[in-house]
Amino acid sequence: MKRVLLLTAIMLLAFPALAFAAEPPTADKLQLAVDSVWVMLAAILVIFMQAGFALLEAGSTRMKNAGHVAGKTILTFGLCGLAFWALGFGLAFGDGNSIIGMTGFFFNGTEEQAAASFGALSASVIPGSIKFLFQLAFVGVALAIAWGGFAERAKLSVYFVFGVLFTIVIYPFVAHWIWGGGWLAEHGKQDFAGSTVVHLQGATAALAATLLLKPRLGKYNKDGKPNLIPGHNQVLSVLGVIILWIGWFGFNPGSTLTAVNDGFFGFIAMNTNLAAAAGGVAALLVSWLYFGKADIPSMLNGVLAALVAITASCAFVEPWAAVIIGLVAGTLTFFTAQWFEKAGVDDPVYAFSVHGIAGIWGSLSTGFFASPRLVEIVGVGKEGLFYGGGLHQLGVQAMGVAVSFVFVFVLSYAILWVMKKTMGLRVTEEEEIMGLDISEHGSYGYPEQMKRSGNETISA
Amino acid sequence: MKRVLLLTAIMLLAFPALAFAAEPPTADKLQLAVDSVWVMLAAILVIFMQAGFALLEAGSTRMKNAGHVAGKTILTFGLCGLAFWALGFGLAFGDGNSIIGMTGFFFNGTEEQAAASFGALSASVIPGSIKFLFQLAFVGVALAIAWGGFAERAKLSVYFVFGVLFTIVIYPFVAHWIWGGGWLAEHGKQDFAGSTVVHLQGATAALAATLLLKPRLGKYNKDGKPNLIPGHNQVLSVLGVIILWIGWFGFNPGSTLTAVNDGFFGFIAMNTNLAAAAGGVAALLVSWLYFGKADIPSMLNGVLAALVAITASCAFVEPWAAVIIGLVAGTLTFFTAQWFEKAGVDDPVYAFSVHGIAGIWGSLSTGFFASPRLVEIVGVGKEGLFYGGGLHQLGVQAMGVAVSFVFVFVLSYAILWVMKKTMGLRVTEEEEIMGLDISEHGSYGYPEQMKRSGNETISA
Amino acid sequence: MKRVLLLTAIMLLAFPALAFAAEPPTADKLQLAVDSVWVMLAAILVIFMQAGFALLEAGSTRMKNAGHVAGKTILTFGLCGLAFWALGFGLAFGDGNSIIGMTGFFFNGTEEQAAASFGALSASVIPGSIKFLFQLAFVGVALAIAWGGFAERAKLSVYFVFGVLFTIVIYPFVAHWIWGGGWLAEHGKQDFAGSTVVHLQGATAALAATLLLKPRLGKYNKDGKPNLIPGHNQVLSVLGVIILWIGWFGFNPGSTLTAVNDGFFGFIAMNTNLAAAAGGVAALLVSWLYFGKADIPSMLNGVLAALVAITASCAFVEPWAAVIIGLVAGTLTFFTAQWFEKAGVDDPVYAFSVHGIAGIWGSLSTGFFASPRLVEIVGVGKEGLFYGGGLHQLGVQAMGVAVSFVFVFVLSYAILWVMKKTMGLRVTEEEEIMGLDISEHGSYGYPEQMKRSGNETISA
Repeated sequence: MKRVLLLTAIMLLAFPALAFAAEPPTADKLQLAVDSVWVMLAAILVIFMQAGFALLEAGSTRMKNAGHVAGKTILTFGLCGLAFWALGFGLAFGDGNSIIGMTGFFFNGTEEQAAASFGALSASVIPGSIKFLFQLAFVGVALAIAWGGFAERAKLSVYFVFGVLFTIVIYPFVAHWIWGGGWLAEHGKQDFAGSTVVHLQGATAALAATLLLKPRLGKYNKDGKPNLIPGHNQVLSVLGVIILWIGWFGFNPGSTLTAVNDGFFGFIAMNTNLAAAAGGVAALLVSWLYFGKADIPSMLNGVLAALVAITASCAFVEPWAAVIIGLVAGTLTFFTAQWFEKAGVDDPVYAFSVHGIAGIWGSLSTGFFASPRLVEIVGVGKEGLFYGGGLHQLGVQAMGVAVSFVFVFVLSYAILWVMKKTMGLRVTEEEEIMGLDISEHGSYGYPEQMKRSGNETISA
Repeated sequence: MKRVLLLTAIMLLAFPALAFAAEPPTADKLQLAVDSVWVMLAAILVIFMQAGFALLEAGSTRMKNAGHVAGKTILTFGLCGLAFWALGFGLAFGDGNSIIGMTGFFFNGTEEQAAASFGALSASVIPGSIKFLFQLAFVGVALAIAWGGFAERAKLSVYFVFGVLFTIVIYPFVAHWIWGGGWLAEHGKQDFAGSTVVHLQGATAALAATLLLKPRLGKYNKDGKPNLIPGHNQVLSVLGVIILWIGWFGFNPGSTLTAVNDGFFGFIAMNTNLAAAAGGVAALLVSWLYFGKADIPSMLNGVLAALVAITASCAFVEPWAAVIIGLVAGTLTFFTAQWFEKAGVDDPVYAFSVHGIAGIWGSLSTGFFASPRLVEIVGVGKEGLFYGGGLHQLGVQAMGVAVSFVFVFVLSYAILWVMKKTMGLRVTEEEEIMGLDISEHGSYGYPEQMKRSGNETISA
Repeated sequence: MKRVLLLTAIMLLAFPALAFAAEPPTADKLQLAVDSVWVMLAAILVIFMQAGFALLEAGSTRMKNAGHVAGKTILTFGLCGLAFWALGFGLAFGDGNSIIGMTGFFFNGTEEQAAASFGALSASVIPGSIKFLFQLAFVGVALAIAWGGFAERAKLSVYFVFGVLFTIVIYPFVAHWIWGGGWLAEHGKQDFAGSTVVHLQGATAALAATLLLKPRLGKYNKDGKPNLIPGHNQVLSVLGVIILWIGWFGFNPGSTLTAVNDGFFGFIAMNTNLAAAAGGVAALLVSWLYFGKADIPSMLNGVLAALVAITASCAFVEPWAAVIIGLVAGTLTFFTAQWFEKAGVDDPVYAFSVHGIAGIWGSLSTGFFASPRLVEIVGVGKEGLFYGGGLHQLGVQAMGVAVSFVFVFVLSYAILWVMKKTMGLRVTEEEEIMGLDISEHGSYGYPEQMKRSGNETISA
């Protein structure tokens, strides 16, 4: 026992800041701790969504591109992590004007710099470093969504350049306008966890990319009819979607940025789950009726579309409305995916339908379903049309969506157009046929399986 | 700095409910927050177990069924999420009588409805929405277990119908009896996290299904001898089991429903881990002795069986007993799996051995090992036989197991029998040969790999 | 309502210890709760890293060994879990002398035994059971690292014997010296989360194994030139690395062992993420320049190397230094991996380069970069060379690294040498050719895919 006390003394001496204080902690310190744990958990869940996107996108594309598709996720999350730390975070959430932030670059992680630079985030007590990680997780998701439009034909170098530019030139603007104290926030735009900020932005960049990259070889016949290019591994896609579903329990409830809110984050989580359930079931049934087969990729997209739609509205609507929002999202995404495909837009993982159309629907949905009691709790904007709020909130939501879409589309298109003219966006036909694993990385993601199928001759 | 303060003011104005209060939070509010974070984390871990089951079941079955097996997990968790919200939660945990609950349908997520409807859950301070998610996660696991018995031959429509009926007609009864303040709770039935409520129920439904569906084509020779139908991907099975192991850190310790219990949930987590470790090692060694080879699927089942067994007893037994409970579970499951297979029961992922036999063993184990000091902490039932408690608790446990098994078996069998006579349970022989991916969904889960093996001719 | 109150009364009666107290909890109890939740979450994340290692190692090796490689991870985590509970935890963290601990074997999970046995861990208020799980997670990682050196040629029995011996004979010494109040702790060795204790130890055992096991068949030509033996599944490798990245948010920030530290664990998490991002980007670029192709396995190793390096230094260095530490780690690991391969060391997943070299670099890095303000917060050692601290801390770090490396290398080599002479380490040539799935377990991990490729003839 003597030795115990001695060692305790040594440890207390050694780790003074980490040791429990002799004095019990104050309520403020305890709130800081529990809020920090909650938002840290949420950030971890949202960062884990990178695995979800890597698996979903790899599973939904072909074996010859699988290593490239999965691997580039890590590369671009790394690039994004550095660029957002250096510039993006300050541009989005730093103090500045109603258009852009201008403080907090190369964030040093101290509460001094956080207090002096990130007024827009000062409503939450959590440390600046966790605010940074949580916001980084969000821009990382937006970027992962954008890549859907580039899949199976863009050069690796494109991911480098556009990944950095999206992080510092595109995303920070809309994020600042809506969440950083900018001009759309002042109009009472409701976007609780980012149907517009994260999903619509990512999806719009994806749309610009699909238009400039043109369809994959073999996607369309000479008469313009689309061919199905099935993904190579539905099990990985399913795993990806479950990880994304799980990640959304950080995405939406974590956006409260506090756990000390009388359990409100639990309500948001429940709404999120109801919408996801409804979206998946709806999309499977619709595909069954439409194709005569219960299509699994359609169901997966239905789950995601519902999650995207409830992202804006999760804190503003009642559970029954969450179910309806999910049902509509799952259905809408199914039909718009068909429509875009027929219209000649080759969006390999349907990024614009899943994250764009559902992002728009979710952003508009609060204009219909926002309930007075929940609007009062959240304190942003007004109740929706169905609660007698008239067209006001719907108008604000529509304006936010329209402005964000136009801004991101024009800027993404312009950046990608310049890249196309200078460095080029797309691999050669020969490279696309042999697959990006070989062309961009020099080795197959599945070397043994590709060899067996006789594909090794292609790379010879 | 002026701008910072201005923005802070705007944000405080904008998100009043989310902002930190000027007053420090009270101890009650802090407890609510930390308990909510803990049980939310636990619910997320248990929902993540859907990925574990999807991977384990897909990895343990054949390539031609892989997309179907994995995908139906998401479908049925979605159906279950809607049905449990509408009816199941109120039936299981609503106020009513000692047989069934009758309040709280279509839960609106408010604390008013929770207080008025869910008296059985009122011992925990966490919000009703998180109680709902945690309980949903549990019925979702029971359902995922049940599907093991349907694998590789049931029609997709069966998952729709039985998934909903299990959620609202079967599960709520036993859940109410043991956890919802029903008649078994009044007898002091010990089932801390659901060896009986979750695992035995799911496994019993699986057993009924295997009997009515009959064995898969090719499973038995004419002389009745079983053939091995190996699963197609052990790596996915291993990943599934690790995810399940991780998920059990929500399942068992989360069932305290509070984190403010002097670290008792940590003790439960430690017991859970010890049992899992012992079960896996035991099953591998037993398979090595019995087969002359260290069989990996047997080891995976041993880990799960031990986790199932410690689920009831985790809070009632000492660490040394957790090791023994795990060792016995791993061994017992190995031999009963052999026995059922030889007896003509084709249970593709050994659901009844892993979750049923081990669920029974775990439920009975507290009758032997429940220690007085832990029974006093938990406050349910009495100490076990080995601590001088006599046969009393063992009798209560046996009664709970027997009643639950008979109830679930009879009801599941009856429902499935009616389904068999009306809509049919099983795909045609031709469909089973081509695989459920094609027959039920119209496309392979692994299109490129199936094509290479020449299987595409089957689907032509 | 009457019924609600009645049920509440029953439940309060039934679960007295779990129910909320009539009195609000004290600040000490709340701190215990929030700290316990935080470290439990961290332990879960680190245990989940077992999935990361299983996937990374399986993905980086060949199909014929995949079931074995993945499955043995679960087996050895089970063995480690039992051995560390019985002996390892007490040896590492029990009270004793400056060389080894000698109390707390077969830990019974009570706070009485924890207080009487684990003085070295008494600076944290969390329960002994969670301390145990967190430390178990760490030795489990060290062991998973070590297995990299055994891959694709060691017998299964070797994993049994060395797994247990590493857990109780090797790891506890260095852990005791640095974290258990031993002699290196007294010298002010900085190793916040285990670059030396966990990563260097595991990697050093791996190095000893590669030397005694000799290279895999076909790895080297007669002239000594190495051949590439590519891993069979980059998608699984990528998933493994993302899981490891996520797990590191438990590994490093969780090592604070408290959440009530003014958000300091968030700072550590931010540093961890910055380093990982820098390491991945650096390694991809270096491989692009060196090979002329952007090599994905190199990038994955770069991410891990950076995470390994920041493990020691995460709490001691500023964010800009975390970026540099990551950049250097990613680059260093790339070149040393090439060098070891050319020097005839066949280390299939580059365990020594990724965890050993980067572990050394990370351990030394605080000698350069430790900043005075952070050293003061953590309270271990002194500031680094670049802050005017001179060579003192660098010397302490170098001594810790050298002593740990020599101790672990000599002991591992001796144990494995004896095993080689008695039971043998390596499967026969014929077994290695047919693969360890068949030779050690009697069935393929991918039976359908192996059959198609004609490999079934090998096992006939």
